[in-house]
Amino acid sequence: MRSIVITAAGGPEVLQLQTRSKPLYSAEQILVAIKATAINRADTLQRKGKYPAPADVVQDVLGLEYAGEVEAVGDSVSKFKKGDRVFGLVGGGSYQEYLLVHAETAMPIPKDISFAHAAAYPEAFVTAFDAMVLQGKLKPGMKVLISAVGSGVGLAAAQIAKLYRAQALGTSRTQDKLDRAKALIGEGFTALKCDKDASFSRQVKESFGDIDLFVELVGGKYVEEDIKCAAAKATIMLIGLLGGTLTELSLNLILMKRLKLIGTSMRSRTLEEKIALTKRFESELLPFIASQELQANLDCTMPFEQIVQAHKMMEADANFGKIVMVI
Amino acid sequence: MRSIVITAAGGPEVLQLQTRSKPLYSAEQILVAIKATAINRADTLQRKGKYPAPADVVQDVLGLEYAGEVEAVGDSVSKFKKGDRVFGLVGGGSYQEYLLVHAETAMPIPKDISFAHAAAYPEAFVTAFDAMVLQGKLKPGMKVLISAVGSGVGLAAAQIAKLYRAQALGTSRTQDKLDRAKALIGEGFTALKCDKDASFSRQVKESFGDIDLFVELVGGKYVEEDIKCAAAKATIMLIGLLGGTLTELSLNLILMKRLKLIGTSMRSRTLEEKIALTKRFESELLPFIASQELQANLDCTMPFEQIVQAHKMMEADANFGKIVMVI
Repeated sequence: MRSIVITAAGGPEVLQLQTRSKPLYSAEQILVAIKATAINRADTLQRKGKYPAPADVVQDVLGLEYAGEVEAVGDSVSKFKKGDRVFGLVGGGSYQEYLLVHAETAMPIPKDISFAHAAAYPEAFVTAFDAMVLQGKLKPGMKVLISAVGSGVGLAAAQIAKLYRAQALGTSRTQDKLDRAKALIGEGFTALKCDKDASFSRQVKESFGDIDLFVELVGGKYVEEDIKCAAAKATIMLIGLLGGTLTELSLNLILMKRLKLIGTSMRSRTLEEKIALTKRFESELLPFIASQELQANLDCTMPFEQIVQAHKMMEADANFGKIVMVI
Repeated sequence: MRSIVITAAGGPEVLQLQTRSKPLYSAEQILVAIKATAINRADTLQRKGKYPAPADVVQDVLGLEYAGEVEAVGDSVSKFKKGDRVFGLVGGGSYQEYLLVHAETAMPIPKDISFAHAAAYPEAFVTAFDAMVLQGKLKPGMKVLISAVGSGVGLAAAQIAKLYRAQALGTSRTQDKLDRAKALIGEGFTALKCDKDASFSRQVKESFGDIDLFVELVGGKYVEEDIKCAAAKATIMLIGLLGGTLTELSLNLILMKRLKLIGTSMRSRTLEEKIALTKRFESELLPFIASQELQANLDCTMPFEQIVQAHKMMEADANFGKIVMVI
């Protein structure tokens, strides 16, 4: 099978198409013939040697999500049969033609969704659902602040907030991304342009009110601002660090407001955690993907062979939503 | 009745004994004749005008906990009758002879416990129980780090950790406090002396292992160290800030380790929250106070009239455990 392999740590040009043998599957696994996979910022970090793959996945093939067709099933798998269309999240290895996954971590692709669109859902929507609903206890009427709302996770988070009847405020430093987010989400979504110094808390408090839940994708100084405009007992879900990893925090506000700052990451989870999360997502969110109330945030599709260009595009921050590779 | 009143913001000498009229009680309240109350660091901050009393309590009388005798009960109170011995936590006002409290926020004093000892329990043990058990999900076998273990909350936390079969590591900058904590807690408690620069994380990791739950009473730079020696999915309960309110945190460790940093404070809670907490404490921890498996950390008792000296002692950090005022 064809695999895109990291030949050395470095720029997009280190990614090469090579031929590898098809993997062998065990009783609880399915072998998926991948039709589409999406690019994530974590892939670019891993390519540079800055974000090691977990121990239980292929080390030199990138890729955290996939959509494809079941090619073969293990002896104890009853959830899927050969030919079923499936999609899901993995710890690595989806930049190739075939992938082994535990059957309980895969979900059926609803019938009107293409492979390319299906590949744009898992990482963004599972991450946002887990952070907002399962960990952040999202409830109707809550005020939710989503930083970097033009990203894949940001756009998913804004849609999930609307689905749960929460009030979402999305920030971005790019007016064009805010306009496009507003067009995608529609009624009930508020956009706020952030300046370079990111001092948004006063404006948020004045025009929108204190925030109950933060989907924090930027990190750095944004977390300081989050704490300032947080309501009592608010939760800050720390998911991304595009804006930096170190910040000075006001611990007395965390204490007095009884805030929760929770770091979250998909990659280091155990198989049991992944199975439990897939079940919750399948029962609570998949119906809204099937009805297309939740829309994949697909920027463009590119052929598998153009992986180097795809990584360059991601690193230039030129995409709005997901870049999907089709095989 | 006699009340110790804050006559102006300032040093211990601003506290004066005055005479006030007894309060009137409503249907769900009890009037308590206070026999003993304890000094807390929060009292010294409030005295200086740095920690305002919540809106629903007497503004110029300090005091966050009490032990006393029920003098009268409201029409709908069935939990207590006149003459019952009670103790509990309040938002303020226990530095006086009589206090009104909602009956459901008071607890019966077990029969072998004196008023002076009873007054040394509520703030320390309710705070530690709420932070460790209810919010921190303390489980047998967990590794728990308690900073400033010689404080009232610290000694309560170390005892609760032992009760729940967790492994406790207590830190202090004073060897004498560590020795006394070790003598009080006994088997299964580990003491670690912290230097002024507080770089304890490496020593903790090497000699004790990664920590699952932090009872953080110092704040400041300690939180940075906590993050370094935290196990995956650990919880840092931020309860006190003796060591400072600002600190620079490594957000990437919070994210990658999936840590929770949770600020907690008793004072701002609603009556409903206080009632719920009292019920949990009464059913889960009061039996162990009755059996004296959990011991009050009483440093000394002083008469009500010596409040100025008591505050001076607290501010000189000269106490090990609680300073109790008897009326």
